[in-house]
Amino acid sequence: MSGPIVVINPNSNRAVTEGLDRALDGFRFADGPPIECLTLPEGPFGIESQVQSDQVVQPLVALVQSRPDAAAFVIACYSDPGLAACREVAKVPVFGIQESGILAAMGRGDMVGVISLSQASVVRHRAYMRRMGVSLRISWDLAVDLSVAESAGGEGAFLTLLTAGHHLIDDGADVIVLGCAGMARHRAQLQTDLGVPVIDPTQAAVAQALGAILG
Amino acid sequence: MSGPIVVINPNSNRAVTEGLDRALDGFRFADGPPIECLTLPEGPFGIESQVQSDQVVQPLVALVQSRPDAAAFVIACYSDPGLAACREVAKVPVFGIQESGILAAMGRGDMVGVISLSQASVVRHRAYMRRMGVSLRISWDLAVDLSVAESAGGEGAFLTLLTAGHHLIDDGADVIVLGCAGMARHRAQLQTDLGVPVIDPTQAAVAQALGAILG
Amino acid sequence: MSGPIVVINPNSNRAVTEGLDRALDGFRFADGPPIECLTLPEGPFGIESQVQSDQVVQPLVALVQSRPDAAAFVIACYSDPGLAACREVAKVPVFGIQESGILAAMGRGDMVGVISLSQASVVRHRAYMRRMGVSLRISWDLAVDLSVAESAGGEGAFLTLLTAGHHLIDDGADVIVLGCAGMARHRAQLQTDLGVPVIDPTQAAVAQALGAILG
Amino acid sequence: MSGPIVVINPNSNRAVTEGLDRALDGFRFADGPPIECLTLPEGPFGIESQVQSDQVVQPLVALVQSRPDAAAFVIACYSDPGLAACREVAKVPVFGIQESGILAAMGRGDMVGVISLSQASVVRHRAYMRRMGVSLRISWDLAVDLSVAESAGGEGAFLTLLTAGHHLIDDGADVIVLGCAGMARHRAQLQTDLGVPVIDPTQAAVAQALGAILG
Amino acid sequence: MSGPIVVINPNSNRAVTEGLDRALDGFRFADGPPIECLTLPEGPFGIESQVQSDQVVQPLVALVQSRPDAAAFVIACYSDPGLAACREVAKVPVFGIQESGILAAMGRGDMVGVISLSQASVVRHRAYMRRMGVSLRISWDLAVDLSVAESAGGEGAFLTLLTAGHHLIDDGADVIVLGCAGMARHRAQLQTDLGVPVIDPTQAAVAQALGAILG
Amino acid sequence: MSGPIVVINPNSNRAVTEGLDRALDGFRFADGPPIECLTLPEGPFGIESQVQSDQVVQPLVALVQSRPDAAAFVIACYSDPGLAACREVAKVPVFGIQESGILAAMGRGDMVGVISLSQASVVRHRAYMRRMGVSLRISWDLAVDLSVAESAGGEGAFLTLLTAGHHLIDDGADVIVLGCAGMARHRAQLQTDLGVPVIDPTQAAVAQALGAILG
Repeated sequence: MSGPIVVINPNSNRAVTEGLDRALDGFRFADGPPIECLTLPEGPFGIESQVQSDQVVQPLVALVQSRPDAAAFVIACYSDPGLAACREVAKVPVFGIQESGILAAMGRGDMVGVISLSQASVVRHRAYMRRMGVSLRISWDLAVDLSVAESAGGEGAFLTLLTAGHHLIDDGADVIVLGCAGMARHRAQLQTDLGVPVIDPTQAAVAQALGAILG
Repeated sequence: MSGPIVVINPNSNRAVTEGLDRALDGFRFADGPPIECLTLPEGPFGIESQVQSDQVVQPLVALVQSRPDAAAFVIACYSDPGLAACREVAKVPVFGIQESGILAAMGRGDMVGVISLSQASVVRHRAYMRRMGVSLRISWDLAVDLSVAESAGGEGAFLTLLTAGHHLIDDGADVIVLGCAGMARHRAQLQTDLGVPVIDPTQAAVAQALGAILG
Repeated sequence: MSGPIVVINPNSNRAVTEGLDRALDGFRFADGPPIECLTLPEGPFGIESQVQSDQVVQPLVALVQSRPDAAAFVIACYSDPGLAACREVAKVPVFGIQESGILAAMGRGDMVGVISLSQASVVRHRAYMRRMGVSLRISWDLAVDLSVAESAGGEGAFLTLLTAGHHLIDDGADVIVLGCAGMARHRAQLQTDLGVPVIDPTQAAVAQALGAILG
Repeated sequence: MSGPIVVINPNSNRAVTEGLDRALDGFRFADGPPIECLTLPEGPFGIESQVQSDQVVQPLVALVQSRPDAAAFVIACYSDPGLAACREVAKVPVFGIQESGILAAMGRGDMVGVISLSQASVVRHRAYMRRMGVSLRISWDLAVDLSVAESAGGEGAFLTLLTAGHHLIDDGADVIVLGCAGMARHRAQLQTDLGVPVIDPTQAAVAQALGAILG
Repeated sequence: MSGPIVVINPNSNRAVTEGLDRALDGFRFADGPPIECLTLPEGPFGIESQVQSDQVVQPLVALVQSRPDAAAFVIACYSDPGLAACREVAKVPVFGIQESGILAAMGRGDMVGVISLSQASVVRHRAYMRRMGVSLRISWDLAVDLSVAESAGGEGAFLTLLTAGHHLIDDGADVIVLGCAGMARHRAQLQTDLGVPVIDPTQAAVAQALGAILG
Repeated sequence: MSGPIVVINPNSNRAVTEGLDRALDGFRFADGPPIECLTLPEGPFGIESQVQSDQVVQPLVALVQSRPDAAAFVIACYSDPGLAACREVAKVPVFGIQESGILAAMGRGDMVGVISLSQASVVRHRAYMRRMGVSLRISWDLAVDLSVAESAGGEGAFLTLLTAGHHLIDDGADVIVLGCAGMARHRAQLQTDLGVPVIDPTQAAVAQALGAILG
């Protein structure tokens, strides 16, 4: 129970890892479990296809196996790469941020809207929501056509996400999930401006990891 | 954000509140949000029927309205009494332990088994799972025929829960939710003995409250 | 079997009760069960929020318990307040008009459209349709932004409902449910003008009560 | 509106029609719509296969077209033969007893058990429940291996149905539908002995016809 | 195994049968099973209503029974008339083209769009998709308002189908099913122009028949 | 269109590849597309875990990319490893045998039973059925506790599968899918002995590949 929560960014963009790290500061306590954010060196610069998502599974499994000290793992890419495989080899709980983000959202509103990077990822998410058995709770998964790196950018990215959020709310969503780990820095301001809960999926996963290891 | 997480036991059995309070110790940090456990004085000694569940809604709403300092609320009865009404009046997130327990379980296994107090509660839970839109993820909700107070008891209660857990696993569950706030004290030992994750729903709700307020 | 069908308007707007009473005239027979329409004196003037809906549960339970002569009860508010609790205490069948209206509609068309008072009620209805397990049969629940009292009004209300009905049909509905007991007076004309079955949910509930007590 | 409710037994077994006729006596009022029960002369003695069910569609359509005076039609065979075709040609509401029986049951309990004649009919019913979009509300459809004529028989048939009812209740059903028009005569006694609502589907359909024409 | 695959066009429009016959040329091999295309002489010129669909069931059953030499049957009308009845009497596999077309599409894309002849058929298809239990995989069933004969026509029909296909893709479909046997001649060009798989349901059914008899 | 259907056995057990090859003989025609069966040299001897399944994705993608002459690909392992990734890179249709086997079964019966190698694979299959959106059509997925190699064995394996088949039929299945490519050799005899269609998923996938390339 004294081990760290190990959060793995499966792409090799260290700016994304640093963004995650900052976004998790609120979850660090003097006498709480350490939260460690790692970059997967073998990962591509951004995971934007199925091939790239599948490519990181083996390095992720190896990384998980190399950290027997961890109290829990979080795989911080919204395609939840290698989640099933890492659960198979880990002796501790493993969380995927898409799964965690959706579950957190289901406790905050009735219809969940998702902001995704690309139309191709929307198709993958829809199948994943069926797999999770929660399709009746998803209103719309809206693509904004940004790269992982762009979504972590400044004003321009924020305004794109804000517009998408308004579209989702007009369509019936009463809670919104950010469909990429890179969007974390925009969460708080989006929630303020949109007036509905906005879920950063990595924060959601870390909260669920705390639930699993502190109980 | 500096306010407490207020956990309300909607029945008036103070032993249950004390059990909850102990079960949440792991979630208290030197520099983290306080977690306060209250007993609803107007509640019945145990909530074991729909009428009793509906009876506590107005006192719960009043209690929520009387605590503008709270950062989040948790309603700690597995029938999630007054959840929708409290969400309507609260300016902060409100969590129900059935909803939170099921969502937490869905991040730990594929098929969720539930241990419930009575056959009547099983019927209510099934309708609630449909309402949540997650019926495909629930394997079996098994009644053990205990009162709230009995489920919080010692060795005898533990053995009853252990037997139920084994039945659920044999039937295909790979994660188990304790269907009453009173069962919290048995969680850790049950998880050890059963070899699958066992979710205490109040702990799950507090973890989700942390996720909502620390993000 | 010789007792009355007791129809309870859980709000205290007597004009709504009188409207219900008239709308049920067709169901009264010389040698049939009496149909009695009551106003719940403790109810708010209109039930337009979750808190108001939950507020009437205890007076409804008390009223049901005070009428051991009833052959059946109908709770005539589209949020079906207290339905589960009243069923728990009543020795005779209890019907909620949302449930009954939807079930009746499912026997008249394939896709059910609903005209609701407000966007907030739409969210509650959607969760209720999931709870009923019939989401695949609901096309659209469209809010018209009227109060209970306004929906029972004259020409203006009628035209608002007619426009909503046309929108629902264009969207694929082939049967329409009036999502408030107050709209009863408009049913027949709406059905004529829209050319699809229009269901008044209180009439639907009384028909189902007849089915339960005459069988 | 002054026309009769025309109930058609699509098989040619007049004893079944007579049983229906008696079972509907409670729905006849001095000043209410007449309820007329007809035997389809072209029907087989019992409809126990898909081929027999499809065989009666054209005679049913012809019969419906020959009765422009009817206020509503009920097709009184649990396979709902010709329901869609009759709805296409009729200018008034048409009810099928399987659909009506299930809808009525969904207003009386949470999980619906069905007593069917044969395993082959169970397979057909399951597909029909999916078509209705209500599969989550059906607990078990249990075959008793009786012919239509046998199910309308005396003590022996009653005991077979009673045993089936107990099995369904043990399995979680809290309301039971009789899956053949011929079982009507046993409904009241089964309900008394089983302690849960027992739905005769023809009575349910007539109640829904009343709802459609009296509104 | 040496018998033919018998493809039955249940309408009496021989031009449609000839179109089918040509569309199946690719499935004929020197040493493979013969594929025979028949016109049902008793069928209407086009099956465009439920009554017409039900009308052909008995002649279809008779035809199936008259061909004990067949290795498999395909019923080549998108309403799948008589599918259950023919399966009951045939000793060999029987395929309906709607069912086969949808199943084939589910192996080629995630969301299936359908191009249908009329709004009335769209309603029937939606119920059929629920019956198949695959509603979550259907994006939109779009009516083009053509008769069977018109859909088999030239340039004008092609452009109508092409426009419909673009609408379906814009709405999220990534595979398209032609909702009438008559549209077969347009399949290849539509697939080329639309850039997503376009399924001719009769070809899909014949492929599944091959799978059933060659295994 | 003149290229071969390339069937890839993603494990390195050549006996399994040879069994597949023989099982596909019926699909080879003098003037039809060649069907080529390959062994993935990088694969494990049997794929019996998630890790092993994910491990073969990259070699599968490479193999697919190395065969631009192929008309279609079949991935012949019941966990459908790499299906999404291979579809992303291939310019021609790619089939997974689990998906194809289930779709073929849905055209042969109403409730699909599956015979799987191990309890762990059953859990993976259940999630996959939800992902496909077809859970309502699956009756039971029964593990027989054999390795891939054992399932391809002689009399002993056959009797184990036969017993499993009888259990599935008793539980309501009317069509059975063999949940491992290695079981192909037993299909015909199992179908004869069980009296319901038994689907070999590789044959099903090849039939669907024929449908895709011959149309």
